[in-house]
Amino acid sequence: MRTVTKNNITDVFTGYFGKDTDPRLKEVLTCLARHLHDFARETNLTHDEWRKGLEFLEWAGNITGPERNEFVLLSDVMGLSSLVDMIHSVPDATSSSVLGPFHVSNPPPLEIGADMKRHYEGDVLLVTGHVFDTNDMPIKGAKLDIWQTAPNGLYSSQDDEQDIHSFHALMTTDENGYYAFTTVKPVSYTVPGDGPVGQILNAAGRHPWRPSHLHFIASAEGCRSVVTEVFPDDDPYLDQDTVFGVREDLVMSYVKQEAGSFPDGFELSGKVPGEYLRVDFDFRLVSES
Amino acid sequence: MRTVTKNNITDVFTGYFGKDTDPRLKEVLTCLARHLHDFARETNLTHDEWRKGLEFLEWAGNITGPERNEFVLLSDVMGLSSLVDMIHSVPDATSSSVLGPFHVSNPPPLEIGADMKRHYEGDVLLVTGHVFDTNDMPIKGAKLDIWQTAPNGLYSSQDDEQDIHSFHALMTTDENGYYAFTTVKPVSYTVPGDGPVGQILNAAGRHPWRPSHLHFIASAEGCRSVVTEVFPDDDPYLDQDTVFGVREDLVMSYVKQEAGSFPDGFELSGKVPGEYLRVDFDFRLVSES
Repeated sequence: MRTVTKNNITDVFTGYFGKDTDPRLKEVLTCLARHLHDFARETNLTHDEWRKGLEFLEWAGNITGPERNEFVLLSDVMGLSSLVDMIHSVPDATSSSVLGPFHVSNPPPLEIGADMKRHYEGDVLLVTGHVFDTNDMPIKGAKLDIWQTAPNGLYSSQDDEQDIHSFHALMTTDENGYYAFTTVKPVSYTVPGDGPVGQILNAAGRHPWRPSHLHFIASAEGCRSVVTEVFPDDDPYLDQDTVFGVREDLVMSYVKQEAGSFPDGFELSGKVPGEYLRVDFDFRLVSES
Repeated sequence: MRTVTKNNITDVFTGYFGKDTDPRLKEVLTCLARHLHDFARETNLTHDEWRKGLEFLEWAGNITGPERNEFVLLSDVMGLSSLVDMIHSVPDATSSSVLGPFHVSNPPPLEIGADMKRHYEGDVLLVTGHVFDTNDMPIKGAKLDIWQTAPNGLYSSQDDEQDIHSFHALMTTDENGYYAFTTVKPVSYTVPGDGPVGQILNAAGRHPWRPSHLHFIASAEGCRSVVTEVFPDDDPYLDQDTVFGVREDLVMSYVKQEAGSFPDGFELSGKVPGEYLRVDFDFRLVSES
């Protein structure tokens, strides 16, 4: 009889695989089992702690549904989501950053120079830039899927006051790879704190804040898409984003512009602002190979 | 600004802890994050695989409820439950083995020599033994919480035909530490295969069988309780228990006894069997210190 011990259990686990198992599945599950077993051995994990861990997963399962996914949030605050992003980031391209749970499909098209904020009030932010390839050549017809929080800190899917496409837009670059739109400055916000993940953050002395950001998915024919976020360099949570989304090349200055300097050619809803903010952010996409 | 990279994210995670965090919580979470991050880096975990993993947990959450816990089953088939048991096993005591999901509280008392099988038919099994301390001294008044499958392979909580206390009993040892009861031989059975864990077992070429066993929780005043299982040495699944529960000292011979040899003093329901099986199993408990 094969005797299972605390020292050989990982090998026994590996020995259980059938001969026809998909090699990648075997690789991933074996590596997962090894780390799970090492974790238990190194911490001398107690039965109580094991039980708490399982109750945690059960609780996460109970509050996960179409509107909320506590497992994704767990992955986010453990740094796993960002790590997977970084593992597959391409050095020459714009860094990727977490997709998050607030993206919606079929965002409404927005013309270059149009206004994403509609009737919402707040600090007007003018966002301009280009989409380039890795040879600094502009990409015409690149798509930017853009979304952000409303001034109340909520995404449309969290907020009964907003329609689902509020602060969501799809922009297409012109022949110079140029894009531009007006909006209001996004705000910092907290991840949901009323579930098991919130309990862990609290017990670990961690805050639930994310620095404010604009979300983008930049894509173009023949190029690898980039899911990313752009952060202002004066956000107080930049050094401790609770989901580890900040990368150096994604931090930009939102520069205050003088009253009277607002450029022509923008379709602002409402009156032209006095002072306003401006950020210029260029995307770099690599060819799909 | 602190730049998070795929190489420093574990350190960044550790740096997020508050100063007043419980040291054990910090130790366990840091170790968990390190292994989770190493797992992702070593496998070059893709976004698709990450998504599948999260969908797996979501599915497990959906089918977990009062009657079934897919997270416990996941822990069982990954070897984690058994590993935690083995980490906390005491060398001089009887080995522990998985509790499983079929234990019920308040099992009905059963007198020494009484019959646990009630009206059920099957191979009669006579179970006898002693509860000793680690100096081989008998422990009087030790409690044995006993449970097993009915002949149809189902535990009472899985089976509408059985009342909840069917094949569950609580026996108290006499002044010699002795216990004895009759039952039917437990049968091999499969763990639930219709959920995400079943899908993984299938993809990994693993069967869902557990070797047959009797469950025990042995306890006595001043001693550490042992949650364990006793297996027959002729079970075909002994070498590949899908939940890794088999230990060398828990495998016993169920010895066939000649017709006419059934001893007096047992309160069998129904007629005295011709041939029958007998297993003798002693428990060893260590003092609580």
